[in-house]
Amino acid sequence: MFGRTYYCGEISEQAIGESVVLKGWVQRRRDLGGLIFIDLRDRTGIVQIVFNPETSKEALENAEKVRNEFVLDVRGKVIARNPKTFNENLKTGKIEVMVEEVSIINEAKTPPFMIENNSEAAEEIRLKYRYLDLRRPEMFDVFKMRHDVSKTIRNFLDGEGFLDIETPMLTKSTPEGARDYLVPSRVHPGEFFALPQSPQIFKQLLMVGGFDKYYQIARCFRDEDLRADRQPEFTQVDIETSFMSQEDIRSMTERMMKQVMLVAKGLEIETSFPIMTYDDAMARFGSDKPDTRFEMELKDISHLVEHSDFKVFTNAVASGGQVKAIVVKGNAAKYSRKDIDALGEFASRHGAKGLAWLKVDEEGIKGPIAKFFSAEDQEQLCEVLDAKNEDLILFVADSQKVVASALGALRLKLGKDLGLIDENKFHFLWITEWPLLEFDEESNRYFAAHHPFTMPVREDIGKLETDPANVRAQAYDLVLNGFELGGGSLRIFERDIQEKMFATLGFTKEEAREQFGFLLEAFEYGTPPHGGIALGLDRMVMLLAGRASLRDTIAFPKTASASDLLMKAPDSVSDSQLKELHLSIEQVKKAQPENA
Amino acid sequence: MFGRTYYCGEISEQAIGESVVLKGWVQRRRDLGGLIFIDLRDRTGIVQIVFNPETSKEALENAEKVRNEFVLDVRGKVIARNPKTFNENLKTGKIEVMVEEVSIINEAKTPPFMIENNSEAAEEIRLKYRYLDLRRPEMFDVFKMRHDVSKTIRNFLDGEGFLDIETPMLTKSTPEGARDYLVPSRVHPGEFFALPQSPQIFKQLLMVGGFDKYYQIARCFRDEDLRADRQPEFTQVDIETSFMSQEDIRSMTERMMKQVMLVAKGLEIETSFPIMTYDDAMARFGSDKPDTRFEMELKDISHLVEHSDFKVFTNAVASGGQVKAIVVKGNAAKYSRKDIDALGEFASRHGAKGLAWLKVDEEGIKGPIAKFFSAEDQEQLCEVLDAKNEDLILFVADSQKVVASALGALRLKLGKDLGLIDENKFHFLWITEWPLLEFDEESNRYFAAHHPFTMPVREDIGKLETDPANVRAQAYDLVLNGFELGGGSLRIFERDIQEKMFATLGFTKEEAREQFGFLLEAFEYGTPPHGGIALGLDRMVMLLAGRASLRDTIAFPKTASASDLLMKAPDSVSDSQLKELHLSIEQVKKAQPENA
Repeated sequence: MFGRTYYCGEISEQAIGESVVLKGWVQRRRDLGGLIFIDLRDRTGIVQIVFNPETSKEALENAEKVRNEFVLDVRGKVIARNPKTFNENLKTGKIEVMVEEVSIINEAKTPPFMIENNSEAAEEIRLKYRYLDLRRPEMFDVFKMRHDVSKTIRNFLDGEGFLDIETPMLTKSTPEGARDYLVPSRVHPGEFFALPQSPQIFKQLLMVGGFDKYYQIARCFRDEDLRADRQPEFTQVDIETSFMSQEDIRSMTERMMKQVMLVAKGLEIETSFPIMTYDDAMARFGSDKPDTRFEMELKDISHLVEHSDFKVFTNAVASGGQVKAIVVKGNAAKYSRKDIDALGEFASRHGAKGLAWLKVDEEGIKGPIAKFFSAEDQEQLCEVLDAKNEDLILFVADSQKVVASALGALRLKLGKDLGLIDENKFHFLWITEWPLLEFDEESNRYFAAHHPFTMPVREDIGKLETDPANVRAQAYDLVLNGFELGGGSLRIFERDIQEKMFATLGFTKEEAREQFGFLLEAFEYGTPPHGGIALGLDRMVMLLAGRASLRDTIAFPKTASASDLLMKAPDSVSDSQLKELHLSIEQVKKAQPENA
Repeated sequence: MFGRTYYCGEISEQAIGESVVLKGWVQRRRDLGGLIFIDLRDRTGIVQIVFNPETSKEALENAEKVRNEFVLDVRGKVIARNPKTFNENLKTGKIEVMVEEVSIINEAKTPPFMIENNSEAAEEIRLKYRYLDLRRPEMFDVFKMRHDVSKTIRNFLDGEGFLDIETPMLTKSTPEGARDYLVPSRVHPGEFFALPQSPQIFKQLLMVGGFDKYYQIARCFRDEDLRADRQPEFTQVDIETSFMSQEDIRSMTERMMKQVMLVAKGLEIETSFPIMTYDDAMARFGSDKPDTRFEMELKDISHLVEHSDFKVFTNAVASGGQVKAIVVKGNAAKYSRKDIDALGEFASRHGAKGLAWLKVDEEGIKGPIAKFFSAEDQEQLCEVLDAKNEDLILFVADSQKVVASALGALRLKLGKDLGLIDENKFHFLWITEWPLLEFDEESNRYFAAHHPFTMPVREDIGKLETDPANVRAQAYDLVLNGFELGGGSLRIFERDIQEKMFATLGFTKEEAREQFGFLLEAFEYGTPPHGGIALGLDRMVMLLAGRASLRDTIAFPKTASASDLLMKAPDSVSDSQLKELHLSIEQVKKAQPENA
């Protein structure tokens, strides 16, 4: 073999006349008038190589054996193409390589799908043959971008004085760890490590250890039923710092994202991202991660309708709920009654008992519920909602939670359906003042909305005992285009507050000591104020690369049922492996006895 | 709180007159003549802060409450010290900070050990309170170096066109995977993932996928009884490339290490590291990772002694073994008979049945076995061994393997004991032409010496069936100062060779297909020639930082018995967690029935 002198996609007109050595895969072969033309592909792109009997009969004969995806070692001369045969679709379209010598390094069977962008092959096949899927140029581009994004983040954080510190993967299961992956230990039979859901506790301990500024691009794990946009293992940009305020951390994150956007998208974005409280986001967009690339905000009209004749509205308000509306601008005519029924069904899948609607035309308001409103009320409604001729108004009347969920989802659906979202826009947004706790009806207790180490807003600490539902967290989520890109908070660094927090979560003192004794103890040895943020790298790359699935941003992803189709994992293991771990597998198919 | 304006260790005389804000831990407090002096510490070092009633009575009163390891927020003015009180041990020793305002951010109990370099606290205590151990400046320095080394490696590889690609942690257990950590899956009860011992297969699949140049600083796992220098999770710099030769890969690795040495040690090293074959290394140093910072090479004297009167020597040679010697230069007088007996015991712990010895003085050779050699033989022996007056000669006669093991270990011990090793030297060395296979007596079969994907030397492929013991691998280990820093190889990329390899390892075709079918199949779709290397990052940092233990290079290490003393992991888990995994724990204490 010869040593490569150029990548295929990087030969330009400057190389005309040069003797080059290329290595690559056959994208396509064409035989034409006694010559053979091959599109040779590597990770940088494609170049046309030409076999001509006058240059080398032997090379031409070798080329005759070549099929798609064969691996070739090629020596030849770069020549200018005839301008008539310029290929505008190729970076290298003005030149070609006249082959003097070729060897077939490896052969290839016909692949199960074509190696090309916008493949129509089923994802299952693409995952099984992931190594072929990865040959598609658009896949390489995603991973090149991922590399560039990681590099940019590392360089930025290095410049800010952060140290890249690795934390353990084999760690301890926590009581909140229902979703921990467990790892049995051979050395300690009957005992288990757990894979981390995040390096949270370790990064806090690094702050106790005086490291001051830590980061890690860390693998994290969550064993749960997967939704379309989750993976059992995922990567987060994990950042923690001491002695910095919420504002400091947010501003640093903004500067980091500015660098990322420049590298990944060539965009100069503004820092000072908008800040919205959680309550505002829920009220205006029905979502804690609003997509602000379009308007159609939720408007509260409870006070307008609470005395109307429409019982659905008045009852909702009377029972402590609310009535809200969104306005679909200038599109009323588009929506038939059937279309609106379909929207109603969509809303009911998101919890609404029904979807009321009105259309505005030149004469005023029309629709089944128009009769319940006086002319004056109608006028006021239009004024409050800024509803004009040709607008469609959609109402949900229910509890605050259901109204937000149904109208928030409907807003997003309409935004997409009507093409209101500019896919080239990148709207960053901070959501702040999150609730610290969430009440779980089933277990009749509070859970940490974020994690149990989140610092409450100082003035709310007294409410931990008296009014937990209204304690705000010193937490901040970063939202991009309707996706949660990451979340952070200041952490509790005083033992007494951490103990109060555990008590609010229903831990006895013994349970708290049993599970988090080392952390409570650490707080007694001079713990600095600290906080941080964690950003989902997979999702970040997905949004920047404009992909629809996290799977496209992970080299070897799992399916929605947490399987690796390429290697066939998970899989059964040998009896001797289980014996060494002192484990046995319970019958799976049979029903488990209640008290097993 | 105020915003920090300086790290403690970074205030220089240039800052004299400036008003500064510092955050840090109290290293030490002294009360002297109505003033209070505190050494304030953060990750960058220490600065002296002074409390003076004339500057602020309130600050002085606050300072009276302060104990070691309290966290302080300090505002004050930088002033020049009186030259008489300059502290040469501190970077900041020519200045001090006159405190105008101080607040105690957090208090601290008296730590279980002093926060200082060269701590004499037991490692067990230091691991339990790792967050305090990490406050010791020398610990911070190690992790700063680790950060710098990682960064340097990443920048170098990025510059060479390598992409940082993450591979899965939840993967599949392999038949060679006796040391795999298994991870039960909730979604697939009774089935297990395995944590990777290395990303080997994935990086090869990335080459099949045309990625051309891959790297990852990857966490790897091995569930085995731990030796002092192993950790259950460790980090490797994992590199793979297509279309490059052994020489290309070695040369690139050398250029990378040159950058690392410059950044970590400020040393300009030569590339073109020496290359030694495995056979040479074993013959000359009795080790496959020789420490070449000192000589004392093993010399084969079998041909000289095979006809001597000393039966131990003649029998060893006659039965296919050998007799080798090392010469301890100029130290014969130092070694009493008792000392030499101790060396003999050491040698026998490394397999030798005995250790013969001779001393050279002005008159010739002395010692218990001198009588077995004629004057002429004695002279020849001294000539061959280059043994002179005052030298001590140590002999081992046994099989080649035992001789290498015993004399190799003895050489290392003597090198250390006699101070022959210059700890400031960094000797890099390549070991090449490794045996591809190792025969295991117990299971009566060959195992891959490296891993089953290593490419045999082309001319040896025929021997896979006829003479497996003598097939050489296209493998190369990088050795630094007697430690294996990393290993690499070219990989098999042709299906037929890979199948032959599996057959040699005793796999039936079905077993090979069952376990590695996806890889064999991948080889049929146009696999490029590829190879790579993996370097142990923990060990690299250990050697560069001059630490004795890998544990000092890992922020939260496990003990030699694979436990985390800080978090107490592994630990028992709840019955409900086990139930969800369909697992039960076999009785551990009782003896296992043979056919369980």
